[in-house]
Amino acid sequence: MRILLINPNATVSMTEQAARSALQVVLPTTRLAVATGQGAPQSIEGFTDEAMSVPGMLAQIRSAEAQGAQATVIVCFDDPGLDAAREVAAGPVIGICQAGIQAAMILAKRFSIITTLPRSVPAIEELVQRYGAHRHCRKVRCINLPVLELEADMGNAYDLLLSEIRRARDEDGAEAVVLGCAGMSELAPALFEATGVVVIDGVIVGVKIAEALLGAGLRTSKINAYDFPRQKIESGRRGGPATNDVQTAQEVGN
Amino acid sequence: MRILLINPNATVSMTEQAARSALQVVLPTTRLAVATGQGAPQSIEGFTDEAMSVPGMLAQIRSAEAQGAQATVIVCFDDPGLDAAREVAAGPVIGICQAGIQAAMILAKRFSIITTLPRSVPAIEELVQRYGAHRHCRKVRCINLPVLELEADMGNAYDLLLSEIRRARDEDGAEAVVLGCAGMSELAPALFEATGVVVIDGVIVGVKIAEALLGAGLRTSKINAYDFPRQKIESGRRGGPATNDVQTAQEVGN
Amino acid sequence: MRILLINPNATVSMTEQAARSALQVVLPTTRLAVATGQGAPQSIEGFTDEAMSVPGMLAQIRSAEAQGAQATVIVCFDDPGLDAAREVAAGPVIGICQAGIQAAMILAKRFSIITTLPRSVPAIEELVQRYGAHRHCRKVRCINLPVLELEADMGNAYDLLLSEIRRARDEDGAEAVVLGCAGMSELAPALFEATGVVVIDGVIVGVKIAEALLGAGLRTSKINAYDFPRQKIESGRRGGPATNDVQTAQEVGN
Amino acid sequence: MRILLINPNATVSMTEQAARSALQVVLPTTRLAVATGQGAPQSIEGFTDEAMSVPGMLAQIRSAEAQGAQATVIVCFDDPGLDAAREVAAGPVIGICQAGIQAAMILAKRFSIITTLPRSVPAIEELVQRYGAHRHCRKVRCINLPVLELEADMGNAYDLLLSEIRRARDEDGAEAVVLGCAGMSELAPALFEATGVVVIDGVIVGVKIAEALLGAGLRTSKINAYDFPRQKIESGRRGGPATNDVQTAQEVGN
Amino acid sequence: MRILLINPNATVSMTEQAARSALQVVLPTTRLAVATGQGAPQSIEGFTDEAMSVPGMLAQIRSAEAQGAQATVIVCFDDPGLDAAREVAAGPVIGICQAGIQAAMILAKRFSIITTLPRSVPAIEELVQRYGAHRHCRKVRCINLPVLELEADMGNAYDLLLSEIRRARDEDGAEAVVLGCAGMSELAPALFEATGVVVIDGVIVGVKIAEALLGAGLRTSKINAYDFPRQKIESGRRGGPATNDVQTAQEVGN
Amino acid sequence: MRILLINPNATVSMTEQAARSALQVVLPTTRLAVATGQGAPQSIEGFTDEAMSVPGMLAQIRSAEAQGAQATVIVCFDDPGLDAAREVAAGPVIGICQAGIQAAMILAKRFSIITTLPRSVPAIEELVQRYGAHRHCRKVRCINLPVLELEADMGNAYDLLLSEIRRARDEDGAEAVVLGCAGMSELAPALFEATGVVVIDGVIVGVKIAEALLGAGLRTSKINAYDFPRQKIESGRRGGPATNDVQTAQEVGN
Repeated sequence: MRILLINPNATVSMTEQAARSALQVVLPTTRLAVATGQGAPQSIEGFTDEAMSVPGMLAQIRSAEAQGAQATVIVCFDDPGLDAAREVAAGPVIGICQAGIQAAMILAKRFSIITTLPRSVPAIEELVQRYGAHRHCRKVRCINLPVLELEADMGNAYDLLLSEIRRARDEDGAEAVVLGCAGMSELAPALFEATGVVVIDGVIVGVKIAEALLGAGLRTSKINAYDFPRQKIESGRRGGPATNDVQTAQEVGN
Repeated sequence: MRILLINPNATVSMTEQAARSALQVVLPTTRLAVATGQGAPQSIEGFTDEAMSVPGMLAQIRSAEAQGAQATVIVCFDDPGLDAAREVAAGPVIGICQAGIQAAMILAKRFSIITTLPRSVPAIEELVQRYGAHRHCRKVRCINLPVLELEADMGNAYDLLLSEIRRARDEDGAEAVVLGCAGMSELAPALFEATGVVVIDGVIVGVKIAEALLGAGLRTSKINAYDFPRQKIESGRRGGPATNDVQTAQEVGN
Repeated sequence: MRILLINPNATVSMTEQAARSALQVVLPTTRLAVATGQGAPQSIEGFTDEAMSVPGMLAQIRSAEAQGAQATVIVCFDDPGLDAAREVAAGPVIGICQAGIQAAMILAKRFSIITTLPRSVPAIEELVQRYGAHRHCRKVRCINLPVLELEADMGNAYDLLLSEIRRARDEDGAEAVVLGCAGMSELAPALFEATGVVVIDGVIVGVKIAEALLGAGLRTSKINAYDFPRQKIESGRRGGPATNDVQTAQEVGN
Repeated sequence: MRILLINPNATVSMTEQAARSALQVVLPTTRLAVATGQGAPQSIEGFTDEAMSVPGMLAQIRSAEAQGAQATVIVCFDDPGLDAAREVAAGPVIGICQAGIQAAMILAKRFSIITTLPRSVPAIEELVQRYGAHRHCRKVRCINLPVLELEADMGNAYDLLLSEIRRARDEDGAEAVVLGCAGMSELAPALFEATGVVVIDGVIVGVKIAEALLGAGLRTSKINAYDFPRQKIESGRRGGPATNDVQTAQEVGN
Repeated sequence: MRILLINPNATVSMTEQAARSALQVVLPTTRLAVATGQGAPQSIEGFTDEAMSVPGMLAQIRSAEAQGAQATVIVCFDDPGLDAAREVAAGPVIGICQAGIQAAMILAKRFSIITTLPRSVPAIEELVQRYGAHRHCRKVRCINLPVLELEADMGNAYDLLLSEIRRARDEDGAEAVVLGCAGMSELAPALFEATGVVVIDGVIVGVKIAEALLGAGLRTSKINAYDFPRQKIESGRRGGPATNDVQTAQEVGN
Repeated sequence: MRILLINPNATVSMTEQAARSALQVVLPTTRLAVATGQGAPQSIEGFTDEAMSVPGMLAQIRSAEAQGAQATVIVCFDDPGLDAAREVAAGPVIGICQAGIQAAMILAKRFSIITTLPRSVPAIEELVQRYGAHRHCRKVRCINLPVLELEADMGNAYDLLLSEIRRARDEDGAEAVVLGCAGMSELAPALFEATGVVVIDGVIVGVKIAEALLGAGLRTSKINAYDFPRQKIESGRRGGPATNDVQTAQEVGN
């Protein structure tokens, strides 16, 4: 089968790390197509970064499906544009945050998530709630390291994650930990070795769940919420030049 | 005070309707700047439409603030890009869905929401949950009419809304109704007259809440989640040409 | 417009502080009527204090509306008698706890509340849940100071609030703080200056939301839950002297 | 043991019905003191009726405890003033709504509640949530009959309840039903006979739970939330005549 | 009345302790039948221990009812097999965890639970959620002592519980504590004396609630979820020797 | 890899159907071991059936792992003994209800579940809540057919499911449906063809998720909740013959 692994940000080395992780676990019959965000932010560290990365990502998903991709894995832990991607794609679309959380709910009663920056914590907490895991997720923690610095010094990232995982185990009662950034992917095995805590990398789990759903013959429902985007009547018929857009703001009031 | 009223979609007539509604209620001292989505979809009817409208909207908000806008009201009931807008803006940013729901929670114990298409129902249900109103919102209903058709024949829209509001009152026990599309704004007063059900239009409430927060001297917290987007190290230093993006997908596997 | 600012407790100086705060933000066209609880407790520090303050408050609201008040703001953070007030009043009724929480949900992703005494914490936690903010409110904290002592020494209250706000920011990840007592109202601006944490005073926000709802032409729904109290058949027709009330308890059992 | 059965409303015949029900189930060693609301509304049909009944009820509970009452059962399904009563009382205080719901959660997986008027439905739904039963309570239904009419024609009430219980069983999948008004108390046995649905009367269950908690040697915690009301510094020291109460409203603004 | 007190584990001394506690509070008219798990684990310390104890317990409940037991109390804090027991029994079945939690919700606003081992914490947290108490239960704590060691040295258990109760009061704001193991039953009075925190023992409360429900004439609903187990068509008609059970696993695949 | 497919009930033909479904989707490298409940009920239709099937199932899982099974799939939609199985097994354990629900949360925004008997509805609703899907699962429906009858006449079952799926789509707004019984497994493809609603069979998804987790190198966390069952001190040291079990109930009381 043919799976698209798409990194919504513009940092090629992060795409490459995700691809390396995925290649270690994909089936021999799986052909992987990898993509990096075009004109997207260098990293996704907030809602604006997410928003700026999505339109390009949607175009890349459409193009990948046109070239035969049967499923898509978005390798950013904020699951940016996940709902929109499920609209534009015919095949299943996996977000690594949702995938990691689902695996954690099978493998442990209580888990914690460890991400990069404090500002990402509330965003991930909202995903935890949307995915129905707020009773199982003890805490969303962070190592207070920007994504690009994390990736630039994996040794440092490893040390910070190691102590944070121990804190999650001892303070939260976490039985498993989900790594909250695609850039941490290759650190998972060593962290499990060192702590005995099951360490879940959403990239690896995401790719395997994509294979599982394809293998089960399942695809995104096209009834209602995830139906393909609606065609609009052609733009010409209405509106015309937006003469009152803010650049030339028509001011009102007395 | 100076408030930006931004319609994320590209349909100027919808912007104009929202502006007419707002002008009926703003303070004499309020100066309104209105904006219409540039290169955005003609209407927001799904997650992809939302995603495509946000980057342009964020640029317009930045530009409006540069020209003196102190608060922003996003006049689309899906509250597209609300979190991102709160990051880029210094002033408070109001989504008409959140504003309408907050007013409903003050004015009634139980309310329903009436939107346009069935596909928008789950998206709005998620907003209801994010805004903490799932115990107060009885049901998210729809009149099964595309946004542009709604706007093209307001008489028909009125009739459909009238019977749906009565259904909400009789079947849901709704004491109030929130109109689930900016395109319904001007119908609110007549619908209240005809039914006795308090009919809340998010556009009007949103503008008044923007005035209220400015009048209270409040603005978006720039600590953590809504801090301004992080500057990245300049793009040149890393990555280089994305040779392995999907157009020229580097295929792997055997 | 004409707004009633009612302090359910009997302490005039608290009413005066609330009025001073409100006067700094109301519109020039707003006429403020202020009222202090008659025969009510000196402060509201528990469920009994609340209960004892409500009947008198309801009478004052009725009387204020008879004299032209169009909206009511109850300036006690427990929102005592809020539902009952919405029944007796024709205009919108705002509780400062609900108002402060709604503002916090617009201005920040995560906030904490800081009140006076530990015994008020569970009561406010229940309000947080009723208003649907339990996912956004990190913690309800207190400075362990009785209401009247707080008001008697504002310098001391300021110091205690200052360190508690810093704790909320550092330990809870609070991006904003809602002051959990009307008696803290005038401290809000200085606390924001000193901490950079958005500090929300429910008195100020409550008055502005009252103006906003009136400006939007909205009022409390009189369908179902908040309908005016039902008239009873006249008392004479049934019962007669309550000969078996507890003072002369008719004892039974063998 | 000595238990106070207090009806917060002023209708003696309702107190008598509750007492008759209780007398059928109390232990031989239980001495029952019964009380009827003094100067309270004839019935509790909304938040204002609740508020008006509580201060008098609290005084009666204090007086009953002074005369030896060890536990209190409030026989109104809105559980008016329950938290305040737990503050003023040393012994356990039972609300018949909470008692009925707790019994239902032991005896069935899913139940419905049937009350009198539609306006009481949202109020009871909030109690269901506060008592943590919203996942177990399928629906709060009503027979659309005022409390006093219900009591005036028990035959009619029986017929309406009978068909509503059948609807709850068939439409809600209710395995048990809780009667949502003290005035329905004596109908419970016949309704169970006629339907096979377990019909729970909060009056009977409430009295038995009061006996159970006393028998277990338990009483209300006086730590924090339910501690006795705080003594205030004597009123004279502050405030003085409320010259600016609303009757003589000091008007402000320009 | 006749009540079965069943200890699902095989440790007779724990049954005896529970019986002693119960005997101190049962009515003179209550006849207690006590049972100890046959071939069950020595203690219930996890999901497997629970599972292994249930089939035998169900048989004992059936047999006890055949001999006249009218209600059953399961004296293990994990409430093992509670739903199944409610199916097989005609009378009400009480779990001491649910009973303790219900009492705590009447006697306090906020409580904590203290159990034996860390591994039991998530299991009890799930019960707290199923019983609708997650908003009232501050924390599930443990003293990190296996059940049998607890019982072997009650003095040590007392000391550990004493300091944990103080921690619950000071750190959690717990107003009451529920003892999370039947083996702690006899320590409750002394712990209350020493701390002033209301200490609830589920064994005592469970027996009294069983008496209360019987006294109220209530029993388990036999409609739907708790109906008696369905009779199956006789086994002979289908299946035959399970030749493909795993001992002789029929292997498949290529 | 080697996966155990275990049917907890005693009906071999149901095991065979599950095996046929699984064989259509497993990887060529997957070796399937299948097991049928020994001395278990013919079908699982309630909490007692579940309880009676678990101890035998746990023994079979242990034995299968001893023979090399690396993961286990429990093919009964009540997920009986899932937590206990995760304790005794070293490899991951999948319940088909949790697996089906997780797939539905990826492939649709809103889904419904269709099971066999009404009595199973509340049990499955509780699983939906435990798995965090109560906001995504619109309704748990049933076709009111006992498991064995369903399996004896698959044509009839197909017709009933077909109309129930259409009802779920039209009345619930379900975008996908999860089949709520392993005995429905082979009907999934035809039901999707006939309705266009994505029909999810937990057996197929469960096996694929088991393969995915093994492929990802993940296993159940042995920290805390799912650690292997604790060894008890040998039984001899305490208790002795349970002379006071209920058969020879030591009666107490006066």
